[in-house]
Amino acid sequence: MPAKNAPFSRHEYDRRIAMTRAAMQDAGLDLLFVTDPSNQAWLTGYDGWSFYVHQGVLLGLEGDPIWWGRYMDSVGANRTCWMEAESIHGYADNYVQSTERHPMQDLAKHIRTLGFEGVRIGVEMDNYYYSAKAHLVLVQELPQVQIKDATALVNWQRLVKSEDEIGFIRKAARISEKIMATALDKAAPGVRKNDLVAEIFHAGITGVGEIWGDYPAIVPLTPSGLDATAAHLTWDGTPMREGEATFFELSGCYRRYHAPLCRTIFLGTPPQEMLDAEQAQLEGISAGLEAARAGNRTCDIANAFIGVLQKHGIHREGRCGYPIGLSYPPDWGERSASIRSEDQTVLQPGMVFHFMPALWMDTWGLETTETILITENGSAEALCDVERKLFVKS
Amino acid sequence: MPAKNAPFSRHEYDRRIAMTRAAMQDAGLDLLFVTDPSNQAWLTGYDGWSFYVHQGVLLGLEGDPIWWGRYMDSVGANRTCWMEAESIHGYADNYVQSTERHPMQDLAKHIRTLGFEGVRIGVEMDNYYYSAKAHLVLVQELPQVQIKDATALVNWQRLVKSEDEIGFIRKAARISEKIMATALDKAAPGVRKNDLVAEIFHAGITGVGEIWGDYPAIVPLTPSGLDATAAHLTWDGTPMREGEATFFELSGCYRRYHAPLCRTIFLGTPPQEMLDAEQAQLEGISAGLEAARAGNRTCDIANAFIGVLQKHGIHREGRCGYPIGLSYPPDWGERSASIRSEDQTVLQPGMVFHFMPALWMDTWGLETTETILITENGSAEALCDVERKLFVKS
Repeated sequence: MPAKNAPFSRHEYDRRIAMTRAAMQDAGLDLLFVTDPSNQAWLTGYDGWSFYVHQGVLLGLEGDPIWWGRYMDSVGANRTCWMEAESIHGYADNYVQSTERHPMQDLAKHIRTLGFEGVRIGVEMDNYYYSAKAHLVLVQELPQVQIKDATALVNWQRLVKSEDEIGFIRKAARISEKIMATALDKAAPGVRKNDLVAEIFHAGITGVGEIWGDYPAIVPLTPSGLDATAAHLTWDGTPMREGEATFFELSGCYRRYHAPLCRTIFLGTPPQEMLDAEQAQLEGISAGLEAARAGNRTCDIANAFIGVLQKHGIHREGRCGYPIGLSYPPDWGERSASIRSEDQTVLQPGMVFHFMPALWMDTWGLETTETILITENGSAEALCDVERKLFVKS
Repeated sequence: MPAKNAPFSRHEYDRRIAMTRAAMQDAGLDLLFVTDPSNQAWLTGYDGWSFYVHQGVLLGLEGDPIWWGRYMDSVGANRTCWMEAESIHGYADNYVQSTERHPMQDLAKHIRTLGFEGVRIGVEMDNYYYSAKAHLVLVQELPQVQIKDATALVNWQRLVKSEDEIGFIRKAARISEKIMATALDKAAPGVRKNDLVAEIFHAGITGVGEIWGDYPAIVPLTPSGLDATAAHLTWDGTPMREGEATFFELSGCYRRYHAPLCRTIFLGTPPQEMLDAEQAQLEGISAGLEAARAGNRTCDIANAFIGVLQKHGIHREGRCGYPIGLSYPPDWGERSASIRSEDQTVLQPGMVFHFMPALWMDTWGLETTETILITENGSAEALCDVERKLFVKS
């Protein structure tokens, strides 16, 4: 079975594995079992919509990683991973959603076959798709093994992006600009929200020239009016209306890399309180970008933003952002650092965040956000080139 | 905060809750904690892309269910659930992706506040988004409580659809027909796969007249050639080529209800072995539909199909289908019964399955599938009206 080209060079995967192994040794681990689809792809190149069944990557302190999953998906692993066929292991189909057997029994057997007995294995206790049952079965099947929590161990290695990864995110940003322009252009009273979202998907997946569009890890969020007071409602068939604000939370995606972006449009004449909030938000974003520089901490960004809001009399709770990059549903966030007052992560060049200073008020929402790159010197670079303001269409 | 209309009548939700409570009593449960987004929506109407953080529904043996999740999503719960505000509970944002605190600590506190001490709680140990860590924290925080595995307890209640649900699936089927026609029409040598997928998304989300399109729980799968030997690879920017088969695994979605459908197209002249396999597959599908009647079992469908394939000298492993209906990513399957030789589920009128007799061969794939409704009398009804054959375009 000839493999396709993995998205990155072998050198890049070697770098990632070396970093991960160093973290494993710091955590006292001999073996790591990775279920988060983003972590699997980051280490091996595996790319398929198969994360709805149990699967994962085993990484020891030497040798190639091993992709483990359903047999029919091992075919896709052979097509997309950079490793050779002997490092791809498929389990029989009658393990799938069975009440009699569990896929983790197969994994445990495979771990024993590989000679990993009496070792310390790290598992992603709180990452996606590692269920409570999967853990209990693994513990039961490997009584000689010490199983430790390695939640987010790989996620933290992903925080500083390589030049190649930044290149992918810049490509995603070109798509984000295109889809935001499409959304702002098509939005009008009477336009059904689903028809607008159809245009957004079409723009995002056709992409920009050679930059073909992949599926984003979160669907377009485009709520209007009262729906926009909630953060995560999806669309329906209701037409857009005069007198309402709609926010667009969107991301282009290039080979699983994202560049999320939000803008808000008001159809008609915005109320003064929204215009006031816009000014506070824009000033807060500028303050946040100023604070987003190497050597500062994530909390400095949040505090700079929240400080400006407070000056304007706006109370705002919740995170103001998170790292982004390679992701699969259900989230495009990387789930390591957070931009919030209690987070002390030191900013380094090459980190990329979705700086997310959204305002969800009692009767309307105002989202204006940026994907930002921490640079060597100076303040952060906003990777999407879209005017930063509340858009108004009369 | 005025609520939007939940998709179904209160009568329908009452029916679902009564069934679930009967199953809880059979399983010796006083309280159920449901994390599977599909189960949450099925019980309460909750609809938002927020399943990337810990959230769920608590259902006791009396009173309304309680939606529990992140505070900012409780706003969306108030917009979409049929229950009153006192049955919506939001936790503070600093529980989200924190290394110091875990959302399940808040849930445990809420369970104690509600007076559920010394009871038996069912949790979905192997459903989506109930992580190993979530379980361990809950167990630790509720030492007086007996926690039992209730995986798929709600999923099994969803197996027989109400008339209203069948109505939704029929609407989704209209969209599935439209997107399949679009895919078959646009497919041609030189067309980039991502551009084809963009057309598929556009067709699916615009929908059919009043039937607006929601996002499917799985993205369109459209692999060609060797990629089609794997079941779950997604698209890239490669142009379609003469001499290759491409399968389309697609679903329209109406208010989270699905009607999956697959067809395969060959650009050029298909090899004889593929034409032979087509005949075997079509004959096998007919046999499966004949066997798919009330009173028979799921295994009867699988055995009828596999029996025909064997007669034609084709060996095929793996499931041949699963129930479908209301779903959220990452899967549109319902994860209760399976259409496979070892499954003994008795078919009843109102059950809806994706009958999935796909063939993944060494050098090509051939997917021809149907969403089928088990009827009162006679064989199953295929809900999508698309010619059942290998499509060929020269």
